[in-house]
Amino acid sequence: MGAGAASPATLELAHTLGRLVAEAGWVVLTGGRPAGVMDAACAGAKMVSGSLTVGILPSGPEGPVSPQVDLAIFTGIGEARNAVNVLSSDVVVACGVEGPGTASEVALALRLGRPIVLLAPSPSASAFFREIAGGTTLHQASTAEAAIELMEHRLCIRRWPG
Amino acid sequence: MGAGAASPATLELAHTLGRLVAEAGWVVLTGGRPAGVMDAACAGAKMVSGSLTVGILPSGPEGPVSPQVDLAIFTGIGEARNAVNVLSSDVVVACGVEGPGTASEVALALRLGRPIVLLAPSPSASAFFREIAGGTTLHQASTAEAAIELMEHRLCIRRWPG
Amino acid sequence: MGAGAASPATLELAHTLGRLVAEAGWVVLTGGRPAGVMDAACAGAKMVSGSLTVGILPSGPEGPVSPQVDLAIFTGIGEARNAVNVLSSDVVVACGVEGPGTASEVALALRLGRPIVLLAPSPSASAFFREIAGGTTLHQASTAEAAIELMEHRLCIRRWPG
Amino acid sequence: MGAGAASPATLELAHTLGRLVAEAGWVVLTGGRPAGVMDAACAGAKMVSGSLTVGILPSGPEGPVSPQVDLAIFTGIGEARNAVNVLSSDVVVACGVEGPGTASEVALALRLGRPIVLLAPSPSASAFFREIAGGTTLHQASTAEAAIELMEHRLCIRRWPG
Repeated sequence: MGAGAASPATLELAHTLGRLVAEAGWVVLTGGRPAGVMDAACAGAKMVSGSLTVGILPSGPEGPVSPQVDLAIFTGIGEARNAVNVLSSDVVVACGVEGPGTASEVALALRLGRPIVLLAPSPSASAFFREIAGGTTLHQASTAEAAIELMEHRLCIRRWPG
Repeated sequence: MGAGAASPATLELAHTLGRLVAEAGWVVLTGGRPAGVMDAACAGAKMVSGSLTVGILPSGPEGPVSPQVDLAIFTGIGEARNAVNVLSSDVVVACGVEGPGTASEVALALRLGRPIVLLAPSPSASAFFREIAGGTTLHQASTAEAAIELMEHRLCIRRWPG
Repeated sequence: MGAGAASPATLELAHTLGRLVAEAGWVVLTGGRPAGVMDAACAGAKMVSGSLTVGILPSGPEGPVSPQVDLAIFTGIGEARNAVNVLSSDVVVACGVEGPGTASEVALALRLGRPIVLLAPSPSASAFFREIAGGTTLHQASTAEAAIELMEHRLCIRRWPG
Repeated sequence: MGAGAASPATLELAHTLGRLVAEAGWVVLTGGRPAGVMDAACAGAKMVSGSLTVGILPSGPEGPVSPQVDLAIFTGIGEARNAVNVLSSDVVVACGVEGPGTASEVALALRLGRPIVLLAPSPSASAFFREIAGGTTLHQASTAEAAIELMEHRLCIRRWPG
């Protein structure tokens, strides 16, 4: 997960993360729009042969979709689809928390008890989410490689298909 | 799309349809629960090597999923997810219209202007949906093979990935 | 519930029904758009002093709302909001079943086990919904007065606020 | 909006806010559960004769509802209903930001461009939301009275019914 309007450094991070997730044999699931972290992470994944990218879109089929998305799910429920992204992910990786959409997804993941990795968050994002996390573990990583390591060995995410 | 509780004839029809859809190179998208037409169509598809089955579930990840589903999307929005099924399908095939869930999906497909094939509907289902269809074309088929023929040559559904 | 594009006879029926529902001390809840049965039922209710009309809209606050709606709930979830209409109603009255949106609501009400009154349905609507109703009772009335009688004495709907 | 599990100070603040909102002639809309800020704000409002409290619930009608809610909207869409709360409010007042549900609502309000007042936020909540607000104005108040003043004179919220 990540902002539609993201900094160049975050986009590069998202591209690397998408590639490494695909290399690990996992599905990349994003918000599916042709913008920002969503697009960059899917583009990274599509450099890997046999990868699968899924986009959970706010619009119906008339809306824009990233060309890097293999399978588009058109929810038609607008921003309420952020809850679908969170529930459908084995782990939510917030690639930067630069926009309110991503912030809502991290908050929903905490609320719904889903595993979370904050990747390169700002100090204030890190401080705020730690404050509201309650008993939930909030993983944090500063590089894409460290995030993969966490998911593989700490969270034990399985390859797809199982 | 089809009932969670379906007749043996409808289940056999769903199994054949799922297999033929996968052989045509299309993704099988269902409601994903381990029951009825959803389960049978996915099981048919999984007889074909390289097939992909997607389930759009009403529950979160704690809910039951058909073991025939490759990719589970957990919406957590209950029956409101029927609109997601319809919007995410290139064509909605109602495999029998034996239950109210399927009836709601056919009605939503008409409302949202999505292509529909009624497969082996009862006379009263056929009469009712024709009555409310307005200008929308309502395709009808009596066998799985005829439904495939319609989708391939009349509706020109493309293989996946595009 | 009823069609956005309805016949003059259905609109008159909706207006009478809205007025009688308000006179009975109940809240009128509709899809809230400035069209068809939704608008007519709310206009009928607003002839009664102290009435309350609620609209559950598919859009966000930028979308159109009937001026007869006192309280607008903007869901932003499109046609998926039909499930919200059904779950939030003590009884679903389908005022004619002339359009696919209304058909989806009757089907969802059956699926979700909510009380239903079909008001002046066509013969084919009546036949179809009876066929798929399973064990659920499907009430039917030919006039607004008879629908009120059913809700008051058979379904025992309570005045609002309770 | 506010946490289901909130501190005594926040609950007292919510009660005062609910009462003052009702006295100003506005509707109190909350998440409707019988817990925390939702319950306290509605209880405050119900001390005022002629007040109206609306609850937008995650569950269907089988789920728990605060007895202080006059009108319950049962969405059945789980946490995705947070977007409905935000879209249906003329202004979102976050009464403390002590839990992830409230954090998701503030983030969605920013994303959807809805007016927001942070009431007595922690320093880290205030810092984080200012960081991600982009061009959106983020109002802040330290007392319920100051929040009312902001809504009345700066945001010019109209009495209900209009």
